[in-house]
Amino acid sequence: MKNDKININEKFSKLKKHWSPRIIAEMNDYQFKIAKIKGEFVWHNHKDTDETFIVIEGQMSIKLREGEVKLSEGEMFIVPQGMDHKPCAEKECKILVIEPRGVVNTGDAGGKYTITEELWI
Amino acid sequence: MKNDKININEKFSKLKKHWSPRIIAEMNDYQFKIAKIKGEFVWHNHKDTDETFIVIEGQMSIKLREGEVKLSEGEMFIVPQGMDHKPCAEKECKILVIEPRGVVNTGDAGGKYTITEELWI
Repeated sequence: MKNDKININEKFSKLKKHWSPRIIAEMNDYQFKIAKIKGEFVWHNHKDTDETFIVIEGQMSIKLREGEVKLSEGEMFIVPQGMDHKPCAEKECKILVIEPRGVVNTGDAGGKYTITEELWI
Repeated sequence: MKNDKININEKFSKLKKHWSPRIIAEMNDYQFKIAKIKGEFVWHNHKDTDETFIVIEGQMSIKLREGEVKLSEGEMFIVPQGMDHKPCAEKECKILVIEPRGVVNTGDAGGKYTITEELWI
């Protein structure tokens, strides 16, 4: 079977590094990724797609050019296609990101956080 | 903005009926739906798409023609495209379902649980 049952917290227990999303499942051409985040990410956007953030544990904010979305455990936000955003978290936060296969985490912004490989956990 | 921030538990508090999924968000042409389930659903499949189940609270099982997947809170499973499945829950269980817009909850199986409208909550 394409995917077995997945325990999201078990997957998180294997992930150590911040800002380093790992794929845990695929649905059609969409991927579910987990990430631990802390501090400030880079401003970027995804010109071809929306991007879904779900907070699994902790708190994060998604800065937008006009305002900021603060998310706690059990809250989700979908960043619209092409919208600049900058994820941030004061303390470590565990998130689930859902987006099409092939989306690069930093969009076209580049920089040290950029991941272009398909990394599963 | 297409979607505001969404609190998944707040959405569940508005949903009373079992087996009656409601859309809470859209990402591109995919939809996030919440459902409260209890008892046995009908056997069905979705011939054009995978379907993602995430358990938010409680326990459920997804019966397959060969075996059964038991899911607890924080676990997810993606039913592959075209695969017969029958969701069940002994006690009320809260789930998040992710699938393309337009997917009918009972596939082609029909019956009293079938929902063909786009119902948001």
